Amino acid sequence: MSTFRLINALKRQPVDRTPVWFMRQAGRYLPEYRALREKMGGFLAMCKTPEVACEITLQPLARFAVDAAIIFSDILTIPDAMGLGLHFATNEGPQFDNPVRDKKAVDRLPIPDPENDLGYVMEAIRLVSRHNQQVPVIGFCGSPWTVATYMVEGKSSRDFSVIKKMLYNEPAILLALLGKLMQASCLYLQAQIQAGAKAVMIFDTWGGVLTGPAYQQFSLHFMQEIVTFLKKSAPEIPVILFTKQGGQWLENIAQTGCDAIGIDWTQNIKDARKRVGHQVALQGNLDPSILLASPATIKAEVKTILADFGVGCGHVFNCGHGITPDVPPENVQAAIEAVQEGYIV
Amino acid sequence: MSTFRLINALKRQPVDRTPVWFMRQAGRYLPEYRALREKMGGFLAMCKTPEVACEITLQPLARFAVDAAIIFSDILTIPDAMGLGLHFATNEGPQFDNPVRDKKAVDRLPIPDPENDLGYVMEAIRLVSRHNQQVPVIGFCGSPWTVATYMVEGKSSRDFSVIKKMLYNEPAILLALLGKLMQASCLYLQAQIQAGAKAVMIFDTWGGVLTGPAYQQFSLHFMQEIVTFLKKSAPEIPVILFTKQGGQWLENIAQTGCDAIGIDWTQNIKDARKRVGHQVALQGNLDPSILLASPATIKAEVKTILADFGVGCGHVFNCGHGITPDVPPENVQAAIEAVQEGYIV
Repeated sequence: MSTFRLINALKRQPVDRTPVWFMRQAGRYLPEYRALREKMGGFLAMCKTPEVACEITLQPLARFAVDAAIIFSDILTIPDAMGLGLHFATNEGPQFDNPVRDKKAVDRLPIPDPENDLGYVMEAIRLVSRHNQQVPVIGFCGSPWTVATYMVEGKSSRDFSVIKKMLYNEPAILLALLGKLMQASCLYLQAQIQAGAKAVMIFDTWGGVLTGPAYQQFSLHFMQEIVTFLKKSAPEIPVILFTKQGGQWLENIAQTGCDAIGIDWTQNIKDARKRVGHQVALQGNLDPSILLASPATIKAEVKTILADFGVGCGHVFNCGHGITPDVPPENVQAAIEAVQEGYIV
Repeated sequence: MSTFRLINALKRQPVDRTPVWFMRQAGRYLPEYRALREKMGGFLAMCKTPEVACEITLQPLARFAVDAAIIFSDILTIPDAMGLGLHFATNEGPQFDNPVRDKKAVDRLPIPDPENDLGYVMEAIRLVSRHNQQVPVIGFCGSPWTVATYMVEGKSSRDFSVIKKMLYNEPAILLALLGKLMQASCLYLQAQIQAGAKAVMIFDTWGGVLTGPAYQQFSLHFMQEIVTFLKKSAPEIPVILFTKQGGQWLENIAQTGCDAIGIDWTQNIKDARKRVGHQVALQGNLDPSILLASPATIKAEVKTILADFGVGCGHVFNCGHGITPDVPPENVQAAIEAVQEGYIV
């Protein structure tokens, strides 16, 4: 048994109440975040300054009784460390100066050494662990497939046509890229754990744009390899896998040996639990847009999810995706209170 | 029995081979389309000029042995006719000058009279029916929910936060808007059928961003009303419903009384058939990105889908979404040939 509610729930052990945290709980919806961002002049500079990343990670903890601190960082730190020239244009998503389009470009990519090349992340985790003992720190990375979409497309995409063309025409090149990202992710998450992360999460934001067989081969397979690696190197650390729009593949995700599955809001958590709840914990799954509604509506929707999950172990409350910038912080508070109250009147 | 392969398949009656057509088969991937577009100076002008819309509708028929002609038009013709000021900025999606954000704006919306306010669509259908007797013309509209997302957001959206805020905070306003769109869509599809459409399809591109209960209440319910209306006014015309990312709700979609369900590429057509194939036909479901691969890969993937569906009636081959502008026309030809050959060697 851990002293942390989150860790116990992820391991499907008894807890006094459902733990709660939010994807992007440290972010643009918080005025104190926006103030700091203005001062620092950009997202990437904040990620790369450990004191600032630590401060931002702790910001939601000063406001809310959340049960975890997720390290403030980005899923594209690995390709940035590989030398792809990451930058964020105003009001645009991430962009790479040097997208990866052929075998040569893949062969050239180095596997970053976490402490040397991504030390700012580990340092931020150490700082957060030092300044906060109340809640566990969650480390994370993007799934190899999801990170690869940005590396190959060069930016956010709607139809992923460049990487899908590679997938269908030159699968060996893509598999080589995914293999490198998988290796890099193993080392990266291991280093985050050594720095103090008490749980880790792999974000597969774009696995859901694939066909079933392609999802297995190009996304889930590589997440499975990471899980297998971590279960050897740090067996006590829970691993959460999250594929957005991956509801059809819950059984396959559960078979990777992960401890918990993040589910998005398009799924019913009762059905999800019936399908895989004997194998893994479930994390989710409020529609983040509900945080734009009134506190009364928010509370009702939170209680529906708690009731749908039902009694028993293995639920971590969260949204089905990140908090959006237009959410009023008091609405997050309303959701947390509803979780604290539980669903039984 | 119809003389048309497509109609028979949609009614799950025997066919000599699986019929095939493609969403956006008339579109930017065709050089003859791009030439015409340059001359006409824009997408909307082409939609609103019946002779041109007819010519574009027929373009793929001159190249390919497709089994249907889908009328060249847009899902936003109804809100345009309601006076919202539709326009397409270069390299942007659709935009409305006057988005609908409150009760007053909803109350003000007229229900367009199809022949008076959208006559250019009916005229184009009449022209296509006159110039082509080989294949049936498919008419279409957007689902009330999907059309409403553009009307409320004012443009394409990633997180749909404006309309979802309305959904959770002021559901009565949204339901009133959806009710008006439903009425307008009933009249619009009825008029398309009277003008010569031999099947109709409702495109619910964005139903998949909703939770299960919200999908039922705000999207599927209104599609169901349209199906019910059409089954009374034109019982012999097959109705196809397509909700992108709606794989979880196939059983519910089948219960609307529609004739066929369009399924996207993230679903397995074999599973889908097991779940609902005794009630409806299935249309789909090649990943449109596969049309960027080599002809050999395309043929293999087409044959996998044909084999997955298996023997028996009720399959219409299509992609799981529209053809993208970067697809080489000869790859569409390869897909069609693979369908013509069938999957049995």
